[in-house]
Amino acid sequence: MAVKSNLQKARAGYQPKLPKALQGPVKVIEGEKTQSVGDQTEINGLFPNTYGMPVVEFAQGEKNESVQFNIGVILSGGQAPGGHNVISGLYDGIKSLNPNNKLYGFLMGPGGLVDHKYIEITSELMDEYRNTGGFDIIGSGRTKLEEVDQFEKGIVILRKLGIKALVIIGGDDSNTNACVLAEYYAAKNYGVQVIGCPKTIDGDLKNEQIEASFGFDTACKTYSELIGNIGRDCNSARKYWHFIKLMGRSASHIALECALQTQPNVCLISEEVAAKEQSLDDIVSYIAGIVAARAGQGDNFGTVLIPEGLIEFIPAIKKLIAELNDVLATDEAKAVAREDQIEYVKAHLCKANLATFSSLPADVASQLALDRDPHGNVQVSLIETEKLLSKMVAAKLAGMKKEGKYVGKFAAQHHFFGYEGRCAAPSNFDADYCYSLGFNASRLIAAGKTGYMSVIRNTTAPASEWIAGGVPITMMMNLEKRAGKMKPVIRKALVELEGKPFKFFAAHREEWALSTSYLYPGSIQYWGPSEVCDQTTKTLQLEQE
Amino acid sequence: MAVKSNLQKARAGYQPKLPKALQGPVKVIEGEKTQSVGDQTEINGLFPNTYGMPVVEFAQGEKNESVQFNIGVILSGGQAPGGHNVISGLYDGIKSLNPNNKLYGFLMGPGGLVDHKYIEITSELMDEYRNTGGFDIIGSGRTKLEEVDQFEKGIVILRKLGIKALVIIGGDDSNTNACVLAEYYAAKNYGVQVIGCPKTIDGDLKNEQIEASFGFDTACKTYSELIGNIGRDCNSARKYWHFIKLMGRSASHIALECALQTQPNVCLISEEVAAKEQSLDDIVSYIAGIVAARAGQGDNFGTVLIPEGLIEFIPAIKKLIAELNDVLATDEAKAVAREDQIEYVKAHLCKANLATFSSLPADVASQLALDRDPHGNVQVSLIETEKLLSKMVAAKLAGMKKEGKYVGKFAAQHHFFGYEGRCAAPSNFDADYCYSLGFNASRLIAAGKTGYMSVIRNTTAPASEWIAGGVPITMMMNLEKRAGKMKPVIRKALVELEGKPFKFFAAHREEWALSTSYLYPGSIQYWGPSEVCDQTTKTLQLEQE
Repeated sequence: MAVKSNLQKARAGYQPKLPKALQGPVKVIEGEKTQSVGDQTEINGLFPNTYGMPVVEFAQGEKNESVQFNIGVILSGGQAPGGHNVISGLYDGIKSLNPNNKLYGFLMGPGGLVDHKYIEITSELMDEYRNTGGFDIIGSGRTKLEEVDQFEKGIVILRKLGIKALVIIGGDDSNTNACVLAEYYAAKNYGVQVIGCPKTIDGDLKNEQIEASFGFDTACKTYSELIGNIGRDCNSARKYWHFIKLMGRSASHIALECALQTQPNVCLISEEVAAKEQSLDDIVSYIAGIVAARAGQGDNFGTVLIPEGLIEFIPAIKKLIAELNDVLATDEAKAVAREDQIEYVKAHLCKANLATFSSLPADVASQLALDRDPHGNVQVSLIETEKLLSKMVAAKLAGMKKEGKYVGKFAAQHHFFGYEGRCAAPSNFDADYCYSLGFNASRLIAAGKTGYMSVIRNTTAPASEWIAGGVPITMMMNLEKRAGKMKPVIRKALVELEGKPFKFFAAHREEWALSTSYLYPGSIQYWGPSEVCDQTTKTLQLEQE
Repeated sequence: MAVKSNLQKARAGYQPKLPKALQGPVKVIEGEKTQSVGDQTEINGLFPNTYGMPVVEFAQGEKNESVQFNIGVILSGGQAPGGHNVISGLYDGIKSLNPNNKLYGFLMGPGGLVDHKYIEITSELMDEYRNTGGFDIIGSGRTKLEEVDQFEKGIVILRKLGIKALVIIGGDDSNTNACVLAEYYAAKNYGVQVIGCPKTIDGDLKNEQIEASFGFDTACKTYSELIGNIGRDCNSARKYWHFIKLMGRSASHIALECALQTQPNVCLISEEVAAKEQSLDDIVSYIAGIVAARAGQGDNFGTVLIPEGLIEFIPAIKKLIAELNDVLATDEAKAVAREDQIEYVKAHLCKANLATFSSLPADVASQLALDRDPHGNVQVSLIETEKLLSKMVAAKLAGMKKEGKYVGKFAAQHHFFGYEGRCAAPSNFDADYCYSLGFNASRLIAAGKTGYMSVIRNTTAPASEWIAGGVPITMMMNLEKRAGKMKPVIRKALVELEGKPFKFFAAHREEWALSTSYLYPGSIQYWGPSEVCDQTTKTLQLEQE
């Protein structure tokens, strides 16, 4: 048994809450047949066995059948707080149906299924991980389950272990693949069900059926704790601008939620940058304008939140990166000596992209031109956007100073938060939500469902009032271009500029820019007053209003 | 009234605990005359009016005199969690003696005294800041109170406001200056007392009289929360080495405490590096050795804690920096063109320093040679030690791989934690400790003391058993060279290699290096089980064992 901190020991005894419908025997209520959100004919064609199934909801029933089955579980992709609670909910769920039911965990992600690496999750092992952060009970991985060969290797071990159903805990891609796998096993009549669980701290796996992906609550609260602490420091020392980058490359939900929780002076939202077709200079001018306005009132300090993916949402930079990838891909380009690379790039870019390239600080430009990933692509993720922006803001302010438009001092500090929150011990919300998702999955399995995602709704109400059920994964799908081909995928949820969370932010940001109205959320609390411990994200509260 | 988070609102109602002796009327128990820790003749000569005073302790008394006086308070230097509670303790302390007593806060640090910038701290204002992090109630600053001119400007405003005593909340330098000010006002018979309070997250203001500086507990717990979260991520993803730098340039107490709380694979202690006269290569080899050993058992991941000040503790680097400062200070050097600067430096360094210089990665060497602060000094603080080390470890491992001594993958992530913890809402320990320090200061003032530091001892016992009193600041002083001159200063507490905290760490680090025995302390809890909420640092527990 591993050594434990006092918090781990005390928290291990927490009994997560379940929706009323899952507290005893369930009965299944089936809704109408469903359609996919787009490309219905094509999706139907691709998923003949798992398309059109009804949404299901669980209600209190008379008596559970004592079903005997074994289950497999996989953690897929990046860590998110609550993964262990999905597994403990699943474990308790199947044991409540029959104590002889077994739970197997495939190791280090989907690769464990393909390579037949697994462990049985025993009662002792499970108890070590209840209400803890991390995915370390069985590990996670990024192998994509996409190939028939993988599916066939999987069925060998699934049969060997007598596994009736596989639960895949993952984000949009992993759930898409769970659906493909469900369809394949159904088409082949292999008798193995596949159920998905919506995980990702990024918050971009949500739609009309799924209110939130798990982990988003805890991760955002952890980042907001830190942003609040920095805001307080900022407001005490009154001498730095803190540029804070937040994990999440494909959507800005984290930045938006953290802004709602902490009320910073600036928060950039990538989706807005894209929609308004802003340039890097537009963004820099916007920040510099706020810095100057605050300096005018004697406040040479502030906080700026930046979503990690920002740079790729700026249309001009996106075009530049696309052309750079093409320009640098040729054999001719690869033969150019490193010291001549930048000149080579400049000579080959179109006029518009050359202008963008030339507007970048020298070190960023040279990084874009020189550093490539193993596939030969520009490494956008290496750009330290927080430093890039503060450097460009400093340059812009220097220009404004000469013109008499800025009087003040500008000094910056930089932060990037990602790994700090992905494995935090789950908040009460995530502990309950995840446990319910897992427990609920056991009921979907018992009901014989496959190609469904475990879904818990009405999550801003107390847990006992949550609604438990399942949604066919095909219902969330449409066709999108991936690596040049049209593929069936779950539509990613970007920040909606017409949605309530963004609108609330937009309605307040001018006030937050000039006034110093920082909120200090503090660290996640597990005990104590309910309004401190049990509230979920402001995003969800606003969306469900 | 400012907007508040739910935690702020709920936490505002917390009533910090006081030592029994301070819960009612006090009587003063005076000990023996004291001596300074070093250079007694000189210190006595410099502080004729405040030298040799007795240590005092408070015991339960019969009846407090109803004394009427006004008090001034100053926050000096970097933020530390609990500063607001020192002020609320002071506020409640003087009000309990006489409700007409007033508390004035000088704004933005010692400069507020000199420039006559202040506010009265009213009951309404005080209630906004109880149990909160930050120094924003009056702000802090780094102006040093050292000149007679400043002291004379100060007395003008102190007299105008009818202030009987000034409380300076600060680190070793600020308390040294508090003592100089106390001595000056005593020598001049100005009738104003000066009391110090021991603040610093760095933990380096402690000695036989002072068990801990405030803020160390909360800051270390916040950093340990994050290190624990990263450790859990590290142990789930199993693919990164996380290099985590921790604030604190002059001592490694924070790194050591965080290591005791989280059990990382590697933690460097600057004081040990200096004592063993390790080179940068020694350190890099040590880390690379552990990386290789873990890779040998299939674990291509780990955590490395690095104290911010490490680089300046490496004797060879210290010598190099000293010579660089000299070499670059000449007019000749200043005239050298930027592109020729590195060659110029190389031509002027002595052989040993040239070897050190040449061993550094190119970007670090060029930064050392090119970037200077306004005083013309090399900017050591700009060196990203965490990246420097991981880069050098990668290079070392590449060499070992060629020799067949390393088989594995090495990928690194980098973090630097400082601002994230300096303004966290104080832990229960810091909330109680700070409140007691402030309340206690009011009793030292009522007892007519000056040149004392407010001291609370026996802090690993429950708060009611804490011992309250005061220690003459001169008692902690000795002479040290500062900018070429011998000055009276409070001796800074470095990590003691013979002390129990380091010895405990040293006895376990080999085990922690190879096994993955991370502890996950989680976020600071204010409510809940006492063993989770009320324990102070492992450093203090081990020291007081």
